[in-house]
Amino acid sequence: METVKAILFDTFGTVVDWRGSVAGEIERLAREKGIDDIDGDAFARAWRAGYQPGMEEVRSGRRPWTSIDVVHRERLDAIVGDFGLAGLSDGERDDLNRAWHRLDPWPDSLPGLRRLHQRFILGPLSNGSTQLLINIAKRVGLPWDVIGSSDAFRSFKPQAEMYLGAVSMLDMEPGEVMMAAAHNDDLKHAQSHGMRTAFICRPYEYGVDQVKDLEATGDWDFVVDGIDELADRLLSSGGSSFSAGK
Amino acid sequence: METVKAILFDTFGTVVDWRGSVAGEIERLAREKGIDDIDGDAFARAWRAGYQPGMEEVRSGRRPWTSIDVVHRERLDAIVGDFGLAGLSDGERDDLNRAWHRLDPWPDSLPGLRRLHQRFILGPLSNGSTQLLINIAKRVGLPWDVIGSSDAFRSFKPQAEMYLGAVSMLDMEPGEVMMAAAHNDDLKHAQSHGMRTAFICRPYEYGVDQVKDLEATGDWDFVVDGIDELADRLLSSGGSSFSAGK
Repeated sequence: METVKAILFDTFGTVVDWRGSVAGEIERLAREKGIDDIDGDAFARAWRAGYQPGMEEVRSGRRPWTSIDVVHRERLDAIVGDFGLAGLSDGERDDLNRAWHRLDPWPDSLPGLRRLHQRFILGPLSNGSTQLLINIAKRVGLPWDVIGSSDAFRSFKPQAEMYLGAVSMLDMEPGEVMMAAAHNDDLKHAQSHGMRTAFICRPYEYGVDQVKDLEATGDWDFVVDGIDELADRLLSSGGSSFSAGK
Repeated sequence: METVKAILFDTFGTVVDWRGSVAGEIERLAREKGIDDIDGDAFARAWRAGYQPGMEEVRSGRRPWTSIDVVHRERLDAIVGDFGLAGLSDGERDDLNRAWHRLDPWPDSLPGLRRLHQRFILGPLSNGSTQLLINIAKRVGLPWDVIGSSDAFRSFKPQAEMYLGAVSMLDMEPGEVMMAAAHNDDLKHAQSHGMRTAFICRPYEYGVDQVKDLEATGDWDFVVDGIDELADRLLSSGGSSFSAGK
């Protein structure tokens, strides 16, 4: 691992708990509207269920480039009625859509990232938009050095443009960049392009719906239970701090 | 100024003192080589003199896209002989070229940026490469939220792609983004695309060579003597902290 200079993190599910964060926002909003019995967790999962199909319309070429913020908003409009929230105004929907810009990190994320930041260049490599990724980071202090977003490369993972674009953006060799993700499929694609890999197990990402990514299914460089553990593993070799001269 | 959400900073000369930093590296290296009488300041200015002509080859279309790191390296090769350093090896030249990744901020930059970071999205908008801008920031702790580099937009300021690309990357309106620079020409172009402007006076950027940008020559939104003063001015209105919901 001596050659790894940068670590790029999948964000939704790997760094932040989208399900718990979105569920919390939904339940708060519903209470304001006098609705007491909404299942915020089910709402979050129903919202997320539109994520891959929405991106697939773009990846397939059936739809021109579309930001994930638009994909999120369209799915929101499609499901609000099922949860008794069809009366939300346009402005209320806009604000709720930005729940995806206000996701909270898993408890180990911030401590682990802060330690890794001393030695590695860090950034997200996410299907989120640049603004979404900035907003998530800035709200809680994620120590990113650079933002790897879907709209920077006008593609969505697992399209090759995302991985190759990020490596090129950093002006590094693929083996100098590690992809860290809670999703085996993401790592499989990163590895196919020559990147290093770290699987961060997040068995509660989807809650009761979670049927995959409960364990590593590939030959990854690291398999850990959190970002703090990744820091333990990567920093235990006692290497020096980040140096701009290298 | 209520609408400004992001401030993008020119980097060379505005945030960092390239002349003093490069001169220091040259003088250190020359001493190691037993050369006592090198004029580091003159070397830095001679190196920088290749900057605009090198970019102009690319801007004009005479040369395909070329990173600023390559432009810097070619100019270095062209001038080392004039300063008695023709004997530098390839590896030594590579390392010296990365002096541009190790530039020190002006004394007011870090305090000012840290204060502005509480309320605004901050980033460079620079003709530097992504890696160069990351390395400068990471070495001294510049609190960037996003990196606006020449290779992100495959163009060099003052090409429109840089300003429009940065505004688009942030998914904002031009009037929500402020360009802060020590160079009137940079601000003139930013303003022509609808961006807000702040002139940060840096009369010592070029030292004895400096003949322009000694004062504001346009109708800029702010004219200040440092980034700390820009923070004073922008934060004095007592606005709230950054909010991902806005």
